[in-house]
Amino acid sequence: MPDSSPVLPRGFQVAGMHCGIKSDATREDLAVIVCQADAVAAGVYTQNRIFAAPVALDRERTPAANIRAVVVNSGNANACTGRRGDEDAAAMCRAVAEACGAEESQALVMSTGVIGEPLPQAKVLAGISAAAAQLGDDDVALQAAARAFMTTDTVPKLAARTVEGSDGPVRLTAIAKGAAMIGPNMATMLALVMTDACLAPEVAQRRLAEAVAETFNCIRVDGHTSTNDTVLLLASGQAESTPRSGASPEAFAAALREVCEELALAIVADGEGTTHVVEILVRGCRTPDEAREIARAVGDSPLVKTAIAGADPNWGRIVSAAGYAGVSFDPAQLELELNSVPLYRHGEPLPFDAAAVSQSIRQQRDVQIVLRLGEGDAEARLWTTDLTTEYVRLNAEYHT
Amino acid sequence: MPDSSPVLPRGFQVAGMHCGIKSDATREDLAVIVCQADAVAAGVYTQNRIFAAPVALDRERTPAANIRAVVVNSGNANACTGRRGDEDAAAMCRAVAEACGAEESQALVMSTGVIGEPLPQAKVLAGISAAAAQLGDDDVALQAAARAFMTTDTVPKLAARTVEGSDGPVRLTAIAKGAAMIGPNMATMLALVMTDACLAPEVAQRRLAEAVAETFNCIRVDGHTSTNDTVLLLASGQAESTPRSGASPEAFAAALREVCEELALAIVADGEGTTHVVEILVRGCRTPDEAREIARAVGDSPLVKTAIAGADPNWGRIVSAAGYAGVSFDPAQLELELNSVPLYRHGEPLPFDAAAVSQSIRQQRDVQIVLRLGEGDAEARLWTTDLTTEYVRLNAEYHT
Repeated sequence: MPDSSPVLPRGFQVAGMHCGIKSDATREDLAVIVCQADAVAAGVYTQNRIFAAPVALDRERTPAANIRAVVVNSGNANACTGRRGDEDAAAMCRAVAEACGAEESQALVMSTGVIGEPLPQAKVLAGISAAAAQLGDDDVALQAAARAFMTTDTVPKLAARTVEGSDGPVRLTAIAKGAAMIGPNMATMLALVMTDACLAPEVAQRRLAEAVAETFNCIRVDGHTSTNDTVLLLASGQAESTPRSGASPEAFAAALREVCEELALAIVADGEGTTHVVEILVRGCRTPDEAREIARAVGDSPLVKTAIAGADPNWGRIVSAAGYAGVSFDPAQLELELNSVPLYRHGEPLPFDAAAVSQSIRQQRDVQIVLRLGEGDAEARLWTTDLTTEYVRLNAEYHT
Repeated sequence: MPDSSPVLPRGFQVAGMHCGIKSDATREDLAVIVCQADAVAAGVYTQNRIFAAPVALDRERTPAANIRAVVVNSGNANACTGRRGDEDAAAMCRAVAEACGAEESQALVMSTGVIGEPLPQAKVLAGISAAAAQLGDDDVALQAAARAFMTTDTVPKLAARTVEGSDGPVRLTAIAKGAAMIGPNMATMLALVMTDACLAPEVAQRRLAEAVAETFNCIRVDGHTSTNDTVLLLASGQAESTPRSGASPEAFAAALREVCEELALAIVADGEGTTHVVEILVRGCRTPDEAREIARAVGDSPLVKTAIAGADPNWGRIVSAAGYAGVSFDPAQLELELNSVPLYRHGEPLPFDAAAVSQSIRQQRDVQIVLRLGEGDAEARLWTTDLTTEYVRLNAEYHT
């Protein structure tokens, strides 16, 4: 069940403030997350060959068993910034580590915003000191930290779960940002999951990778993998529960998956110009990879996405997108449902009430596409957005 | 050199007329192409697993040495129409073969238009007889035939070349249609190249495949491979030139490539809502496939396409799209030029006059993106369009 009032897991303190990267002084652009004692940390990063300095740094340091702090800035991605970028990322880690009495190697960093511009180093370092003096574990501090993740996001993105362990509760609280990429050069999906569960580093890494594969890696807004995408998991181990698991491993994994899914869907729903969130389920495939390829082809098709924006139950665009996914299948076995209405079966369209299906798309934000192949038992799920004139306007009319 | 007044190669006659598929009686929707004697025919078809009945039929019959006629209709794709669709495609071939005194197996068929609706069979068959009585080899007949290929195309698409052979000229005349896919369920790129060169079937097939690989397969409007995409080459062998080649093989191959490229670019330029044609050159790769993957990632990125629409020299979107193409490369070797202006080198942006580059995009229809990797000598070229609010409007606001 969703948790209505996210508060922090034991062992964490956070702060969010404006340090001067964003031009609007009322908008937070720097967050600091501190763990009282050494935390286990895991990370999953962008697969883009062009990756930002903070990604390079964190990738080297995770998984780890001794992380004490994370510093996050928005408004500048510190990407495509060369050696200066690497130095700035290291300096941010040094500053936040110093502020909490740790070594530089015990800190991680995430950045999001403009690509290709150097960070305003003095402002950021002064901000880290100031933020470290404002740390708190209440909702006010958490909300400020979440706002410091935002770029073109219209809302801060938070999710939390509590899992009952054998000796008491285990808590997960997570922050994310993301709303597609937007110009000029704004980028990135970032997420940070804090938990007081007790996890070994390799377990934390495996659980995070599994959760990301089924959640953040299943959302597409514009198919544009950014230079900065990062998901971190920090585990303080301070829950008053069974050591090493903190709760049943299955319950913890499910809760981790849930917070990731909730945030992933919040990112899709906040997609630029989005009027619909589209869930694509592909079933009956030989392998999960083949199911994913088909889901991606459908979810990336501008013709499918514009049809949903126009509330058009255009089965032809959907089945033909499935057909060019590069996956071999028998077209005569293909079936399609849109918002639970069967539109296509055995290689032919079915008669259906197009006006009623169009109305069902128009009346709700969530749209479901189900494709069934007759090749096997594997399936995949993907969430995407529709494609609206507003998306194009936002991304075309913002000039450098 | 482009040929200013396309006329037909020896041995061909064509007709175009309205038979009643399109609701507007002033618009041609049926073309018949007849060869006086057996022609060599080659075909290249959609790779979509969901392919239309005419594609299935032609694929079976090509390459061939005895083709006498091709019938083409627009307004109905005869796709996703089941067994009825196969029967309709066969009946169209039978009718056009009969009209020119040939066997059904000597005819080919191409269809484009609405998916999932049965053809108005009686109208089409009556139209084939009527068209066969109007055959001509002049420009009026050719223009009418070209208009009969059109769906959402705003202009008929023709290209021609003459190659001087040892004993006289060899002629190529080609018709194409395509302007992305548009709703509801309109589809397809079709092209038909007629030549009086003398070619063996396997040579015709190889030359056509090579030309298509470098031209029609290098254009992307929305990345949506249709159910009906077909390119046919018919060679009558009636040029008064050297038997078996009709001209030097290299000169013929170059001319074939040129007509295909001219038509491919005409399709991109006619892309729905297009305000720019973008040429993407990727150089310095290990293999042509890797170069193509990078070109496709850049050309399919809605963020790159919206940036061009907005005349925004957004190098960050371009290099990050290259980075997620799934091709391994050293980011520090990556270079980018936009309209001949260097924007990125050695992993960092270069200082450049953004206003001047933006102005150069705004002032011309053609935009060139050149990416250079430092991995090898292979390269690839791709043409695409920008992505405008008009494209989304056209594809979202047309309701079923």
